[in-house]
Amino acid sequence: MFILVNLKAYPCDPVAVARAARDVADAHGVRIAVAPQAADLARVEATGVETWAQHVSPVEHGSHTGSTLAEAVEANGAEGTLINHSERRVTLAAVDDALAAARRTDLETIVCANDPEQAGAAAALSPDAVAVEPPALIGGDVSVATADPEIVEGAVAAVNAVDPDVELFCGAGVSTGDDVEAARDLGATGVLLASGVAKAADPRSALEDLVSGI
Amino acid sequence: MFILVNLKAYPCDPVAVARAARDVADAHGVRIAVAPQAADLARVEATGVETWAQHVSPVEHGSHTGSTLAEAVEANGAEGTLINHSERRVTLAAVDDALAAARRTDLETIVCANDPEQAGAAAALSPDAVAVEPPALIGGDVSVATADPEIVEGAVAAVNAVDPDVELFCGAGVSTGDDVEAARDLGATGVLLASGVAKAADPRSALEDLVSGI
Amino acid sequence: MFILVNLKAYPCDPVAVARAARDVADAHGVRIAVAPQAADLARVEATGVETWAQHVSPVEHGSHTGSTLAEAVEANGAEGTLINHSERRVTLAAVDDALAAARRTDLETIVCANDPEQAGAAAALSPDAVAVEPPALIGGDVSVATADPEIVEGAVAAVNAVDPDVELFCGAGVSTGDDVEAARDLGATGVLLASGVAKAADPRSALEDLVSGI
Amino acid sequence: MFILVNLKAYPCDPVAVARAARDVADAHGVRIAVAPQAADLARVEATGVETWAQHVSPVEHGSHTGSTLAEAVEANGAEGTLINHSERRVTLAAVDDALAAARRTDLETIVCANDPEQAGAAAALSPDAVAVEPPALIGGDVSVATADPEIVEGAVAAVNAVDPDVELFCGAGVSTGDDVEAARDLGATGVLLASGVAKAADPRSALEDLVSGI
Repeated sequence: MFILVNLKAYPCDPVAVARAARDVADAHGVRIAVAPQAADLARVEATGVETWAQHVSPVEHGSHTGSTLAEAVEANGAEGTLINHSERRVTLAAVDDALAAARRTDLETIVCANDPEQAGAAAALSPDAVAVEPPALIGGDVSVATADPEIVEGAVAAVNAVDPDVELFCGAGVSTGDDVEAARDLGATGVLLASGVAKAADPRSALEDLVSGI
Repeated sequence: MFILVNLKAYPCDPVAVARAARDVADAHGVRIAVAPQAADLARVEATGVETWAQHVSPVEHGSHTGSTLAEAVEANGAEGTLINHSERRVTLAAVDDALAAARRTDLETIVCANDPEQAGAAAALSPDAVAVEPPALIGGDVSVATADPEIVEGAVAAVNAVDPDVELFCGAGVSTGDDVEAARDLGATGVLLASGVAKAADPRSALEDLVSGI
Repeated sequence: MFILVNLKAYPCDPVAVARAARDVADAHGVRIAVAPQAADLARVEATGVETWAQHVSPVEHGSHTGSTLAEAVEANGAEGTLINHSERRVTLAAVDDALAAARRTDLETIVCANDPEQAGAAAALSPDAVAVEPPALIGGDVSVATADPEIVEGAVAAVNAVDPDVELFCGAGVSTGDDVEAARDLGATGVLLASGVAKAADPRSALEDLVSGI
Repeated sequence: MFILVNLKAYPCDPVAVARAARDVADAHGVRIAVAPQAADLARVEATGVETWAQHVSPVEHGSHTGSTLAEAVEANGAEGTLINHSERRVTLAAVDDALAAARRTDLETIVCANDPEQAGAAAALSPDAVAVEPPALIGGDVSVATADPEIVEGAVAAVNAVDPDVELFCGAGVSTGDDVEAARDLGATGVLLASGVAKAADPRSALEDLVSGI
C-alpha cells in the first residue's frame, strides 16, 4: 500500500509533517509520500521523505507565466504528481498533456476521478495510477471504502477493464488504519489522504495509526 | 454516415444553411444535422432539419446564469449535442455531467477528442459517439482521414476496445466527398465539419459534394 | 427604476414569466426586462417583453464552438446583456471584450460585481450599468439594500468616482417592493432579481409587489 | 525604475539569472527582481536577489489542492507577486481576492492589464502597481513604449485618474536600455520583461544594457 499525504493549502508545517512521514515510513517499511505546495517542495524533499507535486501544468518550457512546470517540480525534488484533483480539475486534453509532461520528467502520476466511469476514462490515458475520490466525501469523517465500498470495487473493475497495468488508489475520508485496510481489501493499492494527517494535532500518531492497517 | 455541420460563431445565415442541409438530406436519403448557436436553435429547427446544440452545460435546473441548459436546448428543437469540442473544452468531470444532462433530456451525444488515447477515454463515459479531431487540422484544407489516417484507425480501435457500442466520427479539414469516403473507409460512421459548408459560397453545392462520398 | 428578471436555469416557463413581466410593465409604465436561457430568447422576445441575454462571449465571428455570440443573441431579440454574473465570471480582459461585443451589436450592458471596489473597477470599463451583488446574499431572503445598505451606497460612490455616466444597480435577495424602494433610496437606479419572480407561484403578483416600491 | 524579470516557464537556469540580477542591481544601485516558477522560489531567494512570485491563488488556507498560496510563496522568499498576467488571467473577483491574499502576507502587487481601460479598472482595486502589456507585443522585438507610446501614456493617465497612489509599469517587448528610458519618459516607474533576459545568451550583459537606460 502507498500512502500519499496531500497537504493542500493547509496551515500546517510542511517540514514537520514530512519528517513524521519519513520516520513512520522508515520505521515500518511502508511507502509514504508528502505532497506540499509547489513552493515548499525543496524543503520537504530535504527531509528525505518521498515528495510529490499536487499538480503540474499541461505545458512544455515556454511562455507560461504562473504555470507549474513539470521540470521545475522535478528539479526541486518531486518524484510524482497528482493530476486532475477534484480541487484542481482540468480538461480531458489537459490531463493527457500533463501526463505527457510527467513522463518527460519521469514523474509518477496519479489521475484523480470522481467515480468508476471517470476512473475508467482516466485509465485510458495510461497514468501509473487512478485515484477515485467521491467529492462529497472529501474532507469528511467517513472513508470512501467504508461508506461506498461499491465505488472502490467499481473503480477497480473499470480500471482493470481498460488497462490492468494501471493501479487504483482511493481517497476521501481516509483517516485510520481501518480505512486503509478496508481500501486494500477492496482492491486498492494506495490511499490519498489530507486533513487526517495534515490537520492532526500529532501527525506522527495519525500516520502510525494509518500504517497499522497495512 | 452521419454528417454534422457545426456553424460555430460564423457569420453565415443559419436558416439558409439549415434549408440547404434539409434539402440535400431529403434528396439523397442521407442523415445531415446542423448545430447553430444556442440562440438560433428554434429557427433552425423550424426549417425541418435535424438540429443539434454545440455544447450543453454540466448542470441541472438551478442557479446557473449564462449556462446552456440541456432542457432549454431540447425545448427549442435540439436532438443532440456536441460535448468537449476543442474550442469549448471542459473538465473530465464536466464531460461526465454533460452526458448525464443529455441523457436526462434524450439528446444524442458526441464527445470530441484530440487523439486516439483521448477518444478511448471519452468512450469510457458511454456517449453515443466520439469524434476525433486533431486540433492542428481544424479549419484547414486537409482532411484528418487523408492527412493522418492512422489517427482515425487508432481512434476506431481505441473506442472499440473500451466500448464497441460507441460510434467513432472524425472531423478537422473535412470538406469533400472524397474526405467523407476516406473517413468511412477507415471505420468512421460520421463526420463533423464546419467551415467547408458554413463558409461556402453555396452551402448546398458543398453538401451535394460531401454526400457524393457516401 | 429598471427591473431585470434573470431566469437563470430555473425550471420555470420562460414565456409565462415574460408575459407577466410585459403585462405588469405595461400596466404600471415601469421598465421590466426578462433574461432567459439563450435558446429561449426568441420565444421570450415574441411576447413583446424587453429581452436580455444572461451572458455574451468575448469574441467576434469565428471558430468559437459553444460560444454565445453577441450577434446571435441580438438577432434573436436581446436588447441587452449581463456580463460577469457571479455564476458566470470571466477574466478582466473578457469583461472588456464582451463589452466591445455588446457595443458592436448595440446591446445595453450590465457588468456584475461583488462589492464596491469591484464595482469601481467595472465602471472603469464603461458599461451602461454596474450591478453590485454580494454572492453571500444571492438566492437568499434578505435584500442587499436592507442587509448591507453600505454596500449599495459604497458602490454608488465608487462608480460615481470613476465614471458618473455609469448607472448603479443592485441585486441579491431582492423580492419585494420594499426592497426596490430601499435600493432606490440608496441611489440605485435598477435592481436584478431572479428567484423572487422566477420561482414564484404567481410571477405576476410577485412583479406587482415589486413595482409597488417604485 | 523597478525592473522585474519574469522567468515564466523558460528553460533557463533560474539561479544563474538570479545571481546576474543581484550583481547588476548591487553594482548599479538599481532595483531588480526575479520571478521564477513557484518551486524555484527558495533557491532564487537564496542568491540574495529580490524574489517575486508569478501568481498567487485567490484563496486563504484550506482545501485548495494545486493552488499557489500567498503564505507559501512568502515563506519561501517572495516579496511580491504578479497577478492576472496575460498568460494567467483570472476573473475580476479573483484579482480582488488575490490582492487580499497578498496584503495578508505583505507581498507587493502588480496587476497586469492589456490596455489603458483595463489598467484603470485594475487601479480601482488598489494594487501597488498596474502593468500594461499589450498581448500582441509580448515576446516580440518591439517595446510597447516605442511601438505604442500612447498606450503607456494612456495607462498612466487612466491609473492616475482612478488612484494616483498606484504606480504604472509597462511590459511587452522590453529588452534594451532605450526601451527602459522610453518607458520612463512616458511616465512608467517600472518595466516587466522576460525573454530579453531569461533567453539571453548572457543575462548579465542583457541586464547591464537595460539599466543603462535608467
